Amino acid sequence: MTGGARTAAPRPPADGPSDAGGVGGLSGPAALAGGVAGPLDPAALAGGVAGPAALRPLLDTVLTALAAGAIERGGPLPAGLPGELAQRVSAALRPDAPSADALADLTRLLVHGAADPADPACAAHLHCPPLAVAVAADLAVSALNPSLDSWDQAPAATVLETELLAELAELVGYQPQQAAGVLTSGGTESTLMALMLARDTVLGAAGSRPELDGIDPARRPRLFASQAAHFSVQRAAAVLGLGERAVVGVPVDHAQRLDPRALAEALAASVRAGETPVAVVATAGTTDTGAIDPLPACAELAAEYGAWLHVDAAYGGGALLSDRLAPLLAGIDRADSVSLDWHKLGWQPVAAGVFLARRAESYASLARRAAYLNPADDEAAGYPSLLGRSLRTTRRADAFKIAVTLRTLGRAGLGRLVDRCHRLARYAAERIRATAEFELHGEPTLTTVVFRVRDVGRRRSGSQDQGRVRGWEQDWGNAELRRRLLETGRAVLGRAELPVPGAESAAPAVWLKLTLLNPHATQAQLDQLLIEVLRTARELD
Amino acid sequence: MTGGARTAAPRPPADGPSDAGGVGGLSGPAALAGGVAGPLDPAALAGGVAGPAALRPLLDTVLTALAAGAIERGGPLPAGLPGELAQRVSAALRPDAPSADALADLTRLLVHGAADPADPACAAHLHCPPLAVAVAADLAVSALNPSLDSWDQAPAATVLETELLAELAELVGYQPQQAAGVLTSGGTESTLMALMLARDTVLGAAGSRPELDGIDPARRPRLFASQAAHFSVQRAAAVLGLGERAVVGVPVDHAQRLDPRALAEALAASVRAGETPVAVVATAGTTDTGAIDPLPACAELAAEYGAWLHVDAAYGGGALLSDRLAPLLAGIDRADSVSLDWHKLGWQPVAAGVFLARRAESYASLARRAAYLNPADDEAAGYPSLLGRSLRTTRRADAFKIAVTLRTLGRAGLGRLVDRCHRLARYAAERIRATAEFELHGEPTLTTVVFRVRDVGRRRSGSQDQGRVRGWEQDWGNAELRRRLLETGRAVLGRAELPVPGAESAAPAVWLKLTLLNPHATQAQLDQLLIEVLRTARELD
Repeated sequence: MTGGARTAAPRPPADGPSDAGGVGGLSGPAALAGGVAGPLDPAALAGGVAGPAALRPLLDTVLTALAAGAIERGGPLPAGLPGELAQRVSAALRPDAPSADALADLTRLLVHGAADPADPACAAHLHCPPLAVAVAADLAVSALNPSLDSWDQAPAATVLETELLAELAELVGYQPQQAAGVLTSGGTESTLMALMLARDTVLGAAGSRPELDGIDPARRPRLFASQAAHFSVQRAAAVLGLGERAVVGVPVDHAQRLDPRALAEALAASVRAGETPVAVVATAGTTDTGAIDPLPACAELAAEYGAWLHVDAAYGGGALLSDRLAPLLAGIDRADSVSLDWHKLGWQPVAAGVFLARRAESYASLARRAAYLNPADDEAAGYPSLLGRSLRTTRRADAFKIAVTLRTLGRAGLGRLVDRCHRLARYAAERIRATAEFELHGEPTLTTVVFRVRDVGRRRSGSQDQGRVRGWEQDWGNAELRRRLLETGRAVLGRAELPVPGAESAAPAVWLKLTLLNPHATQAQLDQLLIEVLRTARELD
Repeated sequence: MTGGARTAAPRPPADGPSDAGGVGGLSGPAALAGGVAGPLDPAALAGGVAGPAALRPLLDTVLTALAAGAIERGGPLPAGLPGELAQRVSAALRPDAPSADALADLTRLLVHGAADPADPACAAHLHCPPLAVAVAADLAVSALNPSLDSWDQAPAATVLETELLAELAELVGYQPQQAAGVLTSGGTESTLMALMLARDTVLGAAGSRPELDGIDPARRPRLFASQAAHFSVQRAAAVLGLGERAVVGVPVDHAQRLDPRALAEALAASVRAGETPVAVVATAGTTDTGAIDPLPACAELAAEYGAWLHVDAAYGGGALLSDRLAPLLAGIDRADSVSLDWHKLGWQPVAAGVFLARRAESYASLARRAAYLNPADDEAAGYPSLLGRSLRTTRRADAFKIAVTLRTLGRAGLGRLVDRCHRLARYAAERIRATAEFELHGEPTLTTVVFRVRDVGRRRSGSQDQGRVRGWEQDWGNAELRRRLLETGRAVLGRAELPVPGAESAAPAVWLKLTLLNPHATQAQLDQLLIEVLRTARELD
């Protein structure tokens, strides 16, 4: 790429020649006709009356590349070392003459180089295979490009998000008329939002305005979360100017659940030390094991100490869709705020994060008047604005795909998908427990199964293999096994570092993790995956 | 929706009946076959080998609804008051039995209720009509759902984002080997990222660790931005714990450009007062007028005072694509960080924000080690991680659509689109200046034209019309005119509140704004739009 600003002389632009030549050297006069562009015009638009005709052949190209690339990959991810794939991608991206084949070529490469969560052997992360209906709905959003920072960029989408959030507030157990929320990029943004509102509400209760004046460190604000909570709590504390050290890590029990007695002690000690407990973050579905903190006890304690209760149900919120599993989240309606990620147990393409606050008025510190987006006279005239709901300005209508999915499958239909994943997790745990070479970490709560292979690679544990890091000698085996599964393209398994239940030492060991989010994966496929793990473990010996 | 957690008893889940009945009451046995689901299965997945076959009929449904909805709307937005549309959307969303028609019905409603930027009369905001090729590329991302928080969720996409960012760093004038960056949700997240790195770098230079220990208010950190800068600067200051009052608003000249002498004075006064200048934010393309601050002077002053320079080129960064316009951004390569939004002058669907830092090491305070995402032994084994680049964890591969667009059109092809919009803006300014009933605010710099209708609605200015707000009597006309254009479905024009150039009073008046981002819009369509504005203005008299 040339012609950047660095070497250019600072002169005002002169009018160039008239633009009769089309765009990218590829288009004819059609590119110049207002809004009407033929399918071969690389600068054709997706919207308008002509958009669908321009899109159709391009979508066909993508579908063809998706099918071809998946067959070419032939498994959950491409075999090989990361450097090999990197070279191939770099070569394909090297600046060259513009090409009408770029969409086909790069899509095929993206598919070839994907870790596809629709493959039952891709089961590492809270990384779901999206539903086709959600993906199709997301296409409409891409084509129309509504942006939720003002009504006049998203008339229907503004209403649609508001209605969806009311429905989800009800699902959580909130009074939908009193609640408010917003779609987010995921749990991390939701945590940031929650802890910002907590900071401004709790510290602001004494009359200060943290959002205007900054933080008064004399208040010594503290956040409480279990040691198994997601690192986004620490990250939010850093972003918010509280500092990571403001986070008090509360001990967990053997199943990685927050210990409520430890929380009570930590809160009491904090207040004795003159600190201000700003928030308690309870996790409903930890990343490592899917553990759910005792929500009622957390609610009691947060209320007692005047702290905000945020329930991070980014993963476990999916249980609300299932009649069988919803009781696991009893007490969530007492949270001041909740996060749910529909790109986890909701089968949406990223992003589909949901943040909900029990009381709309807790959004006060985020309220914002911008003359170009939500002038007072427009609001008085009935034009609603969602600007004050989000940390973002421009914002994609991620609510649409969720709404379409809910209306297509219903809560019950989605609940059955959750139940299937949960049942598969229980089946996997059973098979792992029945296999002598495996060690199960504990019973699955949601859809995560943590286990390891006993004594894998022990005979090579003294060697200097690539990827071995000092201090992990005793765990080299399962870490290396996981990488071997990646390199051979056989499986994408997750990894966790957790103490060994019942062991004297609290030192963490490396575990393998199955995060089962594919509702179509069968028991036979799960068996096959475990066989692959054993076979690969034996190769390492 | 029923069955939420609020009323459910807290009992552990029991195993339900076996799941032979399919999903949502609509599917047959195909829904249970692993990964192979027929097109009529509402729970079919988009990925895998079977995904394309499941997607094809659904995409067809969307294309049909896009075409039908656009014809039904018959203009840039639906005519009517917001409440009328809201009722229609609410009715369509009302919980009902799951329906296989939901995708078609809701898409048609979304299209009907859209403000479609592909219509030349939709020209209010930095809200671009996306290119069909970018929308098609985004479909592949939705289907495969790569997430950039770990290599094993996005092998190819991880490389692709890294390569794209290096290319964009070069476009800005950075040394790509030394720079680093990340895709963001847009300018607001990029500003937050920039000011967080600025906070941690500048305040941390004295040995403190703001990201760990929180902010030391004794340092009295200050941020400097022009009074025409985007409100995301204030919002970031609030989020970051600095407080909105830490932002010093620097006066602008008649063309809304930061006055460098005023910046010099503000910085000097700040230091004299014992404050710490943390960052200067220069805007390359303001939201209201597209004004570009004097970047070289800002760079000099930021360097002199040891402050971070962030250039918000969310809008104006598009000029880098055009040989004619790139000189307007001379000096941008001296910024410590830059934001570019490809969902503005880049014709991408939202989100396509780009954040770039000149020095990769300035990311230090965001570095993050998570055992489940980027363990040290995996990195040693060659698995790259982008986790420490972003404020998010789960992150969609927004780089893909940009990369496909760049390879399809080339920088030069995109530059021609920028030039077209720029030429149309100059044409619009010329026509407005030549029309006695219009008043032009100033010459357009990029693609924004600000103007107003003289004496509109003056005869009714004493009345008590809906939407009139105290203090705006003299401006009732243009504000009401803009709403009338919305209500009649004729046009979506922007709004700005700016002083009248040359007037004695600095009090802001209401202006109309054309933000011209449709490269296919013609001069004839622009003429028609201006005629519509005049016609509507006369209706108000």
